[in-house]
Parts: sequence; structure tokens; C-alpha cells
Amino acid sequence: MSEPRLERLSLNQATIQRWDMRQTIAGCARAGIGRIGLWRDKLQALGVSATAQHLRDAGIKPSSLCRGGFFPAATRAERDARIDDNRRAIDEAAEVGAPVLVLVSGPPADRDIDRARRQVEDGICAILPYAAERGVRLAIEPLHPMFAGDRSVVVTLAQANTMAERISSDFVGVAVDVYHVWWDPEVYVEIARAGEGKRIVGCHVSDWLAPPPDHVLGRGVMGDGLIEVRRLREAVDAAGYTGPVEVEIFNRAVWDMPGDEVLALIKDRYLAYC
Amino acid sequence: MSEPRLERLSLNQATIQRWDMRQTIAGCARAGIGRIGLWRDKLQALGVSATAQHLRDAGIKPSSLCRGGFFPAATRAERDARIDDNRRAIDEAAEVGAPVLVLVSGPPADRDIDRARRQVEDGICAILPYAAERGVRLAIEPLHPMFAGDRSVVVTLAQANTMAERISSDFVGVAVDVYHVWWDPEVYVEIARAGEGKRIVGCHVSDWLAPPPDHVLGRGVMGDGLIEVRRLREAVDAAGYTGPVEVEIFNRAVWDMPGDEVLALIKDRYLAYC
Repeated sequence: MSEPRLERLSLNQATIQRWDMRQTIAGCARAGIGRIGLWRDKLQALGVSATAQHLRDAGIKPSSLCRGGFFPAATRAERDARIDDNRRAIDEAAEVGAPVLVLVSGPPADRDIDRARRQVEDGICAILPYAAERGVRLAIEPLHPMFAGDRSVVVTLAQANTMAERISSDFVGVAVDVYHVWWDPEVYVEIARAGEGKRIVGCHVSDWLAPPPDHVLGRGVMGDGLIEVRRLREAVDAAGYTGPVEVEIFNRAVWDMPGDEVLALIKDRYLAYC
Repeated sequence: MSEPRLERLSLNQATIQRWDMRQTIAGCARAGIGRIGLWRDKLQALGVSATAQHLRDAGIKPSSLCRGGFFPAATRAERDARIDDNRRAIDEAAEVGAPVLVLVSGPPADRDIDRARRQVEDGICAILPYAAERGVRLAIEPLHPMFAGDRSVVVTLAQANTMAERISSDFVGVAVDVYHVWWDPEVYVEIARAGEGKRIVGCHVSDWLAPPPDHVLGRGVMGDGLIEVRRLREAVDAAGYTGPVEVEIFNRAVWDMPGDEVLALIKDRYLAYC
């Protein structure tokens, strides 16, 4: 068992919904957390260049930008609009210095889930040259299968690996979020496979409460649920990943806590369980 | 596209929670539905031999008994108690004439999901001779991964197939419930694999509402959601399955409808979408 170093801890800012970008940067600086996983809404609210300046002033680096994706749509015009929006997200990531854009692939537009999956791959291929030119890596993030109907038709690490292997670019990898993959009997095999291809570009942690108290806002703080978080994080490390470990907890009760208390809690739990 | 014949329709009685066993049998007789998927609580409430008599009188056959399983537990004594309860379920299935006992494997007792999965397989092996003597087939039913923490550590058809292949008995097969497997990129491969081993012993239908309105009571009526029900049912048929197609819908709004209206609705939807 190896503890991760605190230097690798990144706060995904969706964990503290009440804080705007400036508060999040200031809070992380107070707590000695050197990395933040950014969200586009908060980035746009402060402005990209202002955010970049605040991050530099605080000595904090962005670990990723959430999120691109949502490629499937009923019409060509809608799909093109999604592509355009993904290009804007790539611009934002490049300008703020986020090395990775996390892709949540999107739900199916109708009952044809196979077509939706093809549209996801087509979408990634469409934005890939733009991302590569700007030095932003795209992270295909498989979501838990309970989100297959409303958020992501990419639902297993095997599927993300296969897609990334087919695309075969240094600028397309996979993000391993323990909440989304812990249930999968093949998860350790697929983490190793992603590592062999040097494709792991993100690692996110939280915990699984049983049953989940909410479809979206039901994640637990590490240690409060059933996920073998450390075992999974160690497997990701053993696969060659040395990057940030983002704490990303969507939970109503956590959102209701004062931000500084959340940061103290997740630092403790990160050291104890990740 | 081939329509399934109405003779294959079975009502899983959990779909109409308000009806007791006699009401369910009488209702299905009125609606011309010749098969019922039984639940143990309702079976025990009327009594096994009385239920068998009512079914015979109405000319209705049980398609399965729900449910055995729930094998993982923290102590040996608890696990033995579960085994004993599964043997009682096998007795009930044999006495009422249900050819199949559906196994919901159970949640993990702690964070060690691998151990829980071994306990499931050990549990099935422990009850298998008892089931074979009584002519009851055990159906390993993979549940949707959102139930991994509270109901079933068996979450993919691949996993159920692998387990059934290892056990390798005519009395252990798999149940394919479209609600639980529709999201899986490997579902058609695994349906074919189950068919090659002649291991499909049940087919259940409902639909996926996005997002699910409830963790347990969020299933939709066929046609109301995103699942390609007919495509999946046809794949199950193409894999060699010719048995009952059970409609199993856990849904608060359906529970609130008069039972006869539910039966009329599911007959229509079965013919249109299954």
C-alpha cells in the first residue's frame, strides 16, 4: 500500500459548487492544494484570461477542464454545433493552461445507441486536429452505465480503450474515475491495458454510497462508501500514470458544507483512502 | 423484425404489486395471459400448494420464481443461513412447478467485491445439487451496475456467462433482463455466447427511462424509454431461446394503476415493442 503524495491532489471545482472561480483558487491556496480541475461555467463567469492570471498569482495549476463531449444529436446541424462548442472548450483549455479536456460523450439522441456511439467517435475525430494543434489532450471518460440514457453512451473502460486505440493519437486518452468504473469485473485488466498504451490522462476519486441517494448528486466522500479507492488508484499508478488525482464529488450535503471544511475533509480522506 | 407470440408473454407479478396471488392468477386468466413469474412473498402468503392448485385450475403455468441468491455475507453462519433459504426457495419452485429460480446474487458485505463474487459462485455451487435433484434450473441474473452496491455484484452478462461456464451444469443458466443489460457494448456478443452454451433460461423486458425516476421503482413500460427491446429479444431468440418473455416493471405509477389496465397496457406494448 502506498499513500499518494498530497502534491498530486487536485480539487475538481464541482465538489464545492458554492464557490466561484476566485473563491476556489483562494481556498485551494489557503489549503495548500496546488491543482484544480476547472469547469467551463465558472471559467467563463470570471473570464479565461482573468482565471489564468489568478491561477498564476496563486501558484496553482489546472489539472483539467470539464467538459467537452455531448456529441450525439438528431441532426447534422446540431452535431456541428456540438463540434464548434468543443473547439471553444479546447481554446479555453489551451488559454488557461489545462493540459486535458475531459469528454463526457453524451446520451443517445434516440433508441439507436450504436449510432450514438459512432457519432461520439466521429465527433472526437473531428475535434482532434484542433486539440493537437493547441496541445490539449482529450480524455474519453467512461461514465457509470446508469448514465447511459442521459449523459454518456461510453460506459466501460474497455469501450473507451477500444475507441482510443482505434483513434490512436497522443492527444486522445482515457480518464479513470473510480465512481464510474469500480463495479466492472474487468476494471483492473482495462486499467493495465490503458497503461500499456500510455493512454491514462486522468484519475478521479470519490466513493459509491449504496444505494446512491441521488442519480447525479449521490457520490460519497472517499471512505464513506464501497469503492476500493486505494486499490484502484494504485492500479492506475502501476499502469504508469503519475499525474494529478482529482477529487470530484457531486453531493448535495457536501455542497451545503462551508468550502474550507470540505477541503480539510477531502485532504484527510485523500491521504487515508486514496 | 418478428413479433413474439402472445403465448410467450409472462407477467412477472411484481409488476402489479397491489394484487395478491389469487388476484394475479384470476387477472391473468381474464386477460388470456398463460404464464406468471412468481414472487416468494406472495407465494408464501397464499401457500405453495394452494398456489399450485389455483394455477392448475386457471390453466396458468409459472415461468419462474423470484428470487434466490443474496449469497455474500460477513460471517460463515450468515452465509449458511442464506444457503438454507435458497434451498427453501428451490423446494418452493419445485412444488409450485416453476422451472427456474432467478438468482439475484446480492451486494458485497464490505469493500471486497472480489470476495463477494467468489461467495456468489460458492453459494451457487452449494445449492446446485439440491436444485438438480428437484429439477429446478438456477438463473444467474446480472443486474444493472447501479445495483452493484445494494443488490448484485454480478453486473454483466459476460460475468454471468463466465460463472455459468465455470460451473458447467445443465441446471445453471443466465437470465437476460433488457433493463439490466441494454447499456452494455458487449451485450449482443454475450447473448450469442450464452446461446451457444444453451444457457439462456429467462428473458425479462421493461424499458429504461432517462434519467431513471427512482433507483428501484424507475423502470418504464416497453416503448416509453430508450431500450431496443425488440432487437434484444430477437437476439435472445436467435441464440436459441424459445421460453417465456417476462414483463417485469418496477414502477410506482404502474403500481398505482388498476391491475386490469396494467395487463391491457403490457399486452399492447409487448406486441408493439417486444
